[in-house]
Amino acid sequence: MRNILVIGAGRSASSLIQYLLNKSIEEDLHLIIGDLSLELAQKKTGNHPNATAIALDIFDANQRKEAIQKADIVISMLPAHLHIEVARDCVVYKKNMVTASYISNEMQELDAAAKENNLIFMNEVGLDPGIDHMSAMKVIDEIGDKGGKMLLFESFCGGLVAPESDTNRWNYKFTWAPRNVVLAGQGGCAKFIQEGTYKYIPYCNLFRRTEFLDVEGYGRFEAYSNRDSLKYRSVYGLDNVLTLYRGTIRRVGFSKAWNMFVQLGMTDDSYVMEDSENMSYRQFVNSFLPYHPTDSVEIKTRLILKIDQDDVMWDKLLELDLFNSNKKVGLKNATPAQILEKILNDKWTLEADDKDMIVMYHKFGYELDGVKKQIDSKMVCIGEDQTYTAMAKTVGLPVAMATLLILNGKIKTPGVQLPIKKEVYLPILKELEEYGVVFKEQSMPYFGYKPDKTS
Amino acid sequence: MRNILVIGAGRSASSLIQYLLNKSIEEDLHLIIGDLSLELAQKKTGNHPNATAIALDIFDANQRKEAIQKADIVISMLPAHLHIEVARDCVVYKKNMVTASYISNEMQELDAAAKENNLIFMNEVGLDPGIDHMSAMKVIDEIGDKGGKMLLFESFCGGLVAPESDTNRWNYKFTWAPRNVVLAGQGGCAKFIQEGTYKYIPYCNLFRRTEFLDVEGYGRFEAYSNRDSLKYRSVYGLDNVLTLYRGTIRRVGFSKAWNMFVQLGMTDDSYVMEDSENMSYRQFVNSFLPYHPTDSVEIKTRLILKIDQDDVMWDKLLELDLFNSNKKVGLKNATPAQILEKILNDKWTLEADDKDMIVMYHKFGYELDGVKKQIDSKMVCIGEDQTYTAMAKTVGLPVAMATLLILNGKIKTPGVQLPIKKEVYLPILKELEEYGVVFKEQSMPYFGYKPDKTS
Repeated sequence: MRNILVIGAGRSASSLIQYLLNKSIEEDLHLIIGDLSLELAQKKTGNHPNATAIALDIFDANQRKEAIQKADIVISMLPAHLHIEVARDCVVYKKNMVTASYISNEMQELDAAAKENNLIFMNEVGLDPGIDHMSAMKVIDEIGDKGGKMLLFESFCGGLVAPESDTNRWNYKFTWAPRNVVLAGQGGCAKFIQEGTYKYIPYCNLFRRTEFLDVEGYGRFEAYSNRDSLKYRSVYGLDNVLTLYRGTIRRVGFSKAWNMFVQLGMTDDSYVMEDSENMSYRQFVNSFLPYHPTDSVEIKTRLILKIDQDDVMWDKLLELDLFNSNKKVGLKNATPAQILEKILNDKWTLEADDKDMIVMYHKFGYELDGVKKQIDSKMVCIGEDQTYTAMAKTVGLPVAMATLLILNGKIKTPGVQLPIKKEVYLPILKELEEYGVVFKEQSMPYFGYKPDKTS
Repeated sequence: MRNILVIGAGRSASSLIQYLLNKSIEEDLHLIIGDLSLELAQKKTGNHPNATAIALDIFDANQRKEAIQKADIVISMLPAHLHIEVARDCVVYKKNMVTASYISNEMQELDAAAKENNLIFMNEVGLDPGIDHMSAMKVIDEIGDKGGKMLLFESFCGGLVAPESDTNRWNYKFTWAPRNVVLAGQGGCAKFIQEGTYKYIPYCNLFRRTEFLDVEGYGRFEAYSNRDSLKYRSVYGLDNVLTLYRGTIRRVGFSKAWNMFVQLGMTDDSYVMEDSENMSYRQFVNSFLPYHPTDSVEIKTRLILKIDQDDVMWDKLLELDLFNSNKKVGLKNATPAQILEKILNDKWTLEADDKDMIVMYHKFGYELDGVKKQIDSKMVCIGEDQTYTAMAKTVGLPVAMATLLILNGKIKTPGVQLPIKKEVYLPILKELEEYGVVFKEQSMPYFGYKPDKTS
């Protein structure tokens, strides 16, 4: 029996554990599922004979080291900043390791030690980062193998609500950490390249500079720019590409409406509001509006945001019950962002039978034999229920598949890795298709930009 | 002879030194003017028999201590963060000290030591901070002495160009540190109180939430909110006031136009732009606009900022030569804010015969004998030339006057002080009138707000 230690039995571990348990008989696997909550870990075993639940406090070094020693490979589904403790033990006890998180600087520093011990520390093998790397590198490598030259790469991803559960005016519900949604785009200027020109978008303009994306069968989406569009330029081998852009997908109209919160200052997480606990929703809104002795909060909001009488933006605000003077914030020493998150949670929490949806969209522009071409690659994944969500599937399945491929010696390259090599992405993308994660690639007329640019 | 050591002979020291030299015979004063540049210090002596210039490097502890030991009182006109070295020596050698800067935490920590040694460390006795404190406290104390209860205090100040030198479409030139103008309002939300309600304005809205101020003989101004409106609430004894607001004065239209830079992201100082050195002004603008193969930078700017064909906003941009593709930025590794400062400096630098102007405006709302009343207090000061500017006068003269009052034992209260006591503000405000710094106080109908507020 090969022992797989899964640390962290939270939401994103469901599909991962289900996959490995389903394979456990034929692949001779034993899962040790460790979580701070033994109950949660036990639930995730589903009473499967090949699974054991253990209470695991990763800050208890003895407990942690003991569990890692017993494993043949370790999957860490902990919050990103906690992987490093596990990773250092994995070096000591010579265990391979898999995570779905971005490679931190500390993790990167273990690269030499991992290589020395012939260990594989596979990271960023979830959805985003993860499936985005794999599905992008597959097409980029194919173009390169044919002798094509990459000109443009745009990549978009979004966690949304499935069409059958899309029941509010924002066409959005929280399917992942709400706090990240509220803070999205903050902390710096969005930077990318278009036709060889560096472009910068400040936060106050970010949600007004969207572009449309059409996905057959699912209609139109929009995307706003990520801050980190250039992060993988060298990793993907795209140092000479003219256009490089990464964005976040929402339904059309979301960004324009979200921008109302940005403009009012409601997404600010840098200061605490006076007496936030006893503030009503209405008072929260009024804090961002000029004082007037008789004008209502409603009319002041309309004026400052220039919302016409018949503008759907207004209905979006009403739907959130923002102007209610009876609903209290009830949070002590809260920032505007924390209060907004609470208000949105009232309305944007998934109902028991709601399903989520992941949308990913890549555009590859390239030149082959003197002709400019384009491939668009699109993937939509709908969740099954609130346990086996599209998010849990797309994050967990590639982690599980990578783990098994490492155990079986199919992934061989040692070091701190991300899934950009064929030995990783080819088998995983292929197997993901069995689980409904299918990229549809289609040739398009070259979308791109004229080389004789006038501006 | 009483020795006054003036450390720092820069722009703001001109009127200060001139005042003290004019008084030096009757008051038996000898000025030692110390600056890193001996030449600059010598220039400022004007060959006056009662003045000596010395080269003074304040980082040379021996030089610094020697100069301070010889003085009877020390004026520091150094950049604010450098006062503390001087102040610590002043404790050791038991010298009084005067600055025009905000009291830093380190300075405040010397309060006990100053009191123990019966020393006066008078700070914030320039213009803003300085004359604002004094002119405000005079009226606040008068209202309190009559038994009135303060309801509202709003205070505005601005360094502008004099009407006779007001020759550009922005009605603005740099009369003080340009960098502070470019970065104004950044680094946090503006916070103030209106009618007992805390109000918050995010940076992206700051320059659209202005209010008008009319000054007889000078026309209309506007003001945008400072970040620190509540800073002096307790110091001024206004803990129970319903409205507290501080703002920066500009000519009408400046803020709306400045907001264009904010919206585009040109005031951002948090990141360095790619290849800033070789970038043209036109390319700088284009960095903040979407790519398009044929649309010009001009039309893209109009579209994103919603500037109509006949909108004066456009002429303001044209006047800055922003769309010039031949002018190079020429700054290595520059932030957007640094580049914008350079572009504005081309156009907003004072000409040799230009004069500057200081405008200060306070509103005091109060209740006396059951009646709500208001006093508005306004001051306008025009500079004489580029040496004896309004800024140099209003910063330097109160510093010089405070110094003489301390020397002559008229200001008595020891400790780390700011000029909010009658012994300080009464003689200084009175003497400032001789120099044209005159506050006109007028009774007004109570501007304020209805107590039965509906929002």
